[in-house]
Amino acid sequence: MKIDVKDVMNDLEKYMGKKVVIDGWVRNHRKQKEFGFIDFSDGTCFKNVQLVYDNKLADFEEITKIKVGSSLEVEGEVIKSEGSGQDFEIKVSSIKVIGECPDEYPIQPKRHTREFLREQAYLRPRTNLFNAIFRVRSIAAYAIHNYFQERGYVYFHAPLITSSDCEGAGQMFQVTTLDLNRVAKSGVVDYSKDFFGKTAALTVSGQLEAETFALAYKKVYTFGPTFRAENSNTKTHASEFWMIEPEIAFCDLEGDMNVMEDMLKYVVKYVLDNCKDEMKFFDSFVEKGLLEKLNKLLTSHFTRISHHDVITILKEAKVDWEFKPEYGEDIAKEHEKYITEYFDGPVFITNWPKDIKAFYMKLNPDKETVAAVDLEVPGAGELMGGSQREEDYDKLVSRMKELDMDASSMEWYLNLRKFGGCPHSGFGMGFERLLIYLTGVENIRDVIPYPRTPGNCEY
Amino acid sequence: MKIDVKDVMNDLEKYMGKKVVIDGWVRNHRKQKEFGFIDFSDGTCFKNVQLVYDNKLADFEEITKIKVGSSLEVEGEVIKSEGSGQDFEIKVSSIKVIGECPDEYPIQPKRHTREFLREQAYLRPRTNLFNAIFRVRSIAAYAIHNYFQERGYVYFHAPLITSSDCEGAGQMFQVTTLDLNRVAKSGVVDYSKDFFGKTAALTVSGQLEAETFALAYKKVYTFGPTFRAENSNTKTHASEFWMIEPEIAFCDLEGDMNVMEDMLKYVVKYVLDNCKDEMKFFDSFVEKGLLEKLNKLLTSHFTRISHHDVITILKEAKVDWEFKPEYGEDIAKEHEKYITEYFDGPVFITNWPKDIKAFYMKLNPDKETVAAVDLEVPGAGELMGGSQREEDYDKLVSRMKELDMDASSMEWYLNLRKFGGCPHSGFGMGFERLLIYLTGVENIRDVIPYPRTPGNCEY
Repeated sequence: MKIDVKDVMNDLEKYMGKKVVIDGWVRNHRKQKEFGFIDFSDGTCFKNVQLVYDNKLADFEEITKIKVGSSLEVEGEVIKSEGSGQDFEIKVSSIKVIGECPDEYPIQPKRHTREFLREQAYLRPRTNLFNAIFRVRSIAAYAIHNYFQERGYVYFHAPLITSSDCEGAGQMFQVTTLDLNRVAKSGVVDYSKDFFGKTAALTVSGQLEAETFALAYKKVYTFGPTFRAENSNTKTHASEFWMIEPEIAFCDLEGDMNVMEDMLKYVVKYVLDNCKDEMKFFDSFVEKGLLEKLNKLLTSHFTRISHHDVITILKEAKVDWEFKPEYGEDIAKEHEKYITEYFDGPVFITNWPKDIKAFYMKLNPDKETVAAVDLEVPGAGELMGGSQREEDYDKLVSRMKELDMDASSMEWYLNLRKFGGCPHSGFGMGFERLLIYLTGVENIRDVIPYPRTPGNCEY
Repeated sequence: MKIDVKDVMNDLEKYMGKKVVIDGWVRNHRKQKEFGFIDFSDGTCFKNVQLVYDNKLADFEEITKIKVGSSLEVEGEVIKSEGSGQDFEIKVSSIKVIGECPDEYPIQPKRHTREFLREQAYLRPRTNLFNAIFRVRSIAAYAIHNYFQERGYVYFHAPLITSSDCEGAGQMFQVTTLDLNRVAKSGVVDYSKDFFGKTAALTVSGQLEAETFALAYKKVYTFGPTFRAENSNTKTHASEFWMIEPEIAFCDLEGDMNVMEDMLKYVVKYVLDNCKDEMKFFDSFVEKGLLEKLNKLLTSHFTRISHHDVITILKEAKVDWEFKPEYGEDIAKEHEKYITEYFDGPVFITNWPKDIKAFYMKLNPDKETVAAVDLEVPGAGELMGGSQREEDYDKLVSRMKELDMDASSMEWYLNLRKFGGCPHSGFGMGFERLLIYLTGVENIRDVIPYPRTPGNCEY
């Protein structure tokens, strides 16, 4: 009976004492005179299974020569494990080598630095750490779909190639089919000859388009790639990353925060429940206290406080700030940290100065702040940002004029305020930022299978 | 109690006779002297709910003036519907207009052509047809995630910006941060100054990268956008579309076909079960017989036959072909149609001539064909394509040489055959092709929220 190792893990009683056949890879191999032990993984679960074989097998000598990295078909009996830390092992009756692996195989059973493994990105999911990271990535993505689908949200695929840069969110990648060598030779750029007949770029956010669907379906969410051509080489910036952008009609900022809090707790709980071995591994080897941090979040009260009151707290704090907190200005990492510690839990900071926030956010009655919110969480800082959208046609137009934006190309967006408009709100969560928070892994390059950063586009 | 219309639909008994508050939009409005009827949608389900109001309301006159497209907050009692085709309606006790809508609102309650609605893409989800299409899109996407996640597959996010064009699948979009005007002025293209320090493009397939993860996790799938810069203006081509690409280690072509068949049946059943109203609508107004077609698929035997034997059948057919079927050549739409009718069901066509298939497909012992498969379904033609991958290092290298491919830039891909390689297989399904099949809507522009085609990149 050919099965996945996960099947045995999930129903040990059923398989105990039974013959099984499994396919997988050798992670480690220790031989003794009369016995051998192979740490074996078929990739379907985090834990390896131990294969035990002895010299009663006719091809014992050959088996002892099997190298790390090789792929095998193994037949054997599921037996109780003598060793600790494992519930079962497999007593081998036969091993067939499917694919050999030479000595120069880079993923040998020893400690590799993350930098080295980044260079071997195509092999790193074969290590414990990255195997865990990318399984959590998959499960967390599913948790997000579950959360929204179970609540009747419509999954909206925002366009990736776009002709509008309305976010003003930074530099964009241009998309073209013009032959650049020909452009250089001819001395002119003729966009009428480009694929779309005009300039096009990779989207920085699907929000504006998501709003059009929210005003038809009430509750929608995006989950797709977005792009930033920022030339910044930090631990938390990538040029290509995945975003979740829910958008909800007939919903104000309070309602928006309710969804943010509820969704985050759901996803954290889902991952804790469904990636137990992976999360234990992160807790032991990546971020001590991770499980405690996440479990605490589940029962945390999320404080809601205005930007103004946050600044007051920061100003009154007896701290020698590197960046002095100021009303009307953004807050720094050190402030984020302080404020989550101050409230001993996640904090929604609301009503931000309009000048440091995007044009589409709803102007508050004070005319100085907008109905925006950032969620700060202990140990990670800003995890999501959202806002109620300006639903007043005239206010939106005048804000765009103030910012020198071209309203004519945005007619469709403005019309949403004319054709049965309503209060609506939404937020954005960078998926990789969530993963950094969930796994304790600090560098965004380690939570994306094939990360793109300035100067780096391998595979 | 503020609720979604869907809540009432799903649990009518609970809400019957109760006061509820709902937010939504006016789809149609018919007034009489003493009564008025509003077709009302909050977007959470396909069916409108009928609001009934009478002149006992103090603001009866004002309510009669409410225009199509307006957004409302409605309070009323859930009552049994007198009319046919509805289980309930809402007897209004109060209506508050949230957002008005002028007479020039394009989506009036009359028949609009799909061409017209394409021009109003941001409003078309407010029509019955597109409301149904994009909800089915969402539910079908979820069905796909459910299918793979429930079976232990790892969801893999393939990179979108890539430096490898290994598919040879057609023209690619170039991605750049070079200033084209400066390129034109300077007369040179200096890629060392480009964002990634070299040329980069939008991916045409995540398969090759998915293979690297399959050889760690055994079972993986992608579900993400892919791009083709083909200058073809047909009903079935878009420049940006979503693909599902599962990849399975220790799996041959037969196993691959098992997954293709099983997944398709699962997704079709899931959509039939979870989009009943939408599917009925398509069956009545888009493709007569759609439900019968899909229900038949669920119990269909999927024929498996070689390309060679298909050609023989086509040659022996007493049909005056537009394109003469030939051994060693591709088949045409008319052949696809004939063969699914011949077998009265879906057909897997296997073992294709190697020269018309991709380099990575496993060479069969005959050295003329490869272990490739196309799935043809009645009424839609080719829905998926897959293959067993060449796992033999030397054969793969020599095939790449034959095709004049640069093996040196593909070392990582080749190494998968050296470092514990194994038989592995996978397939690709264009998500929009599936949607066309599921909804009966013929034009790919009508199943993508904001389609991108040559010369068209709005929003």
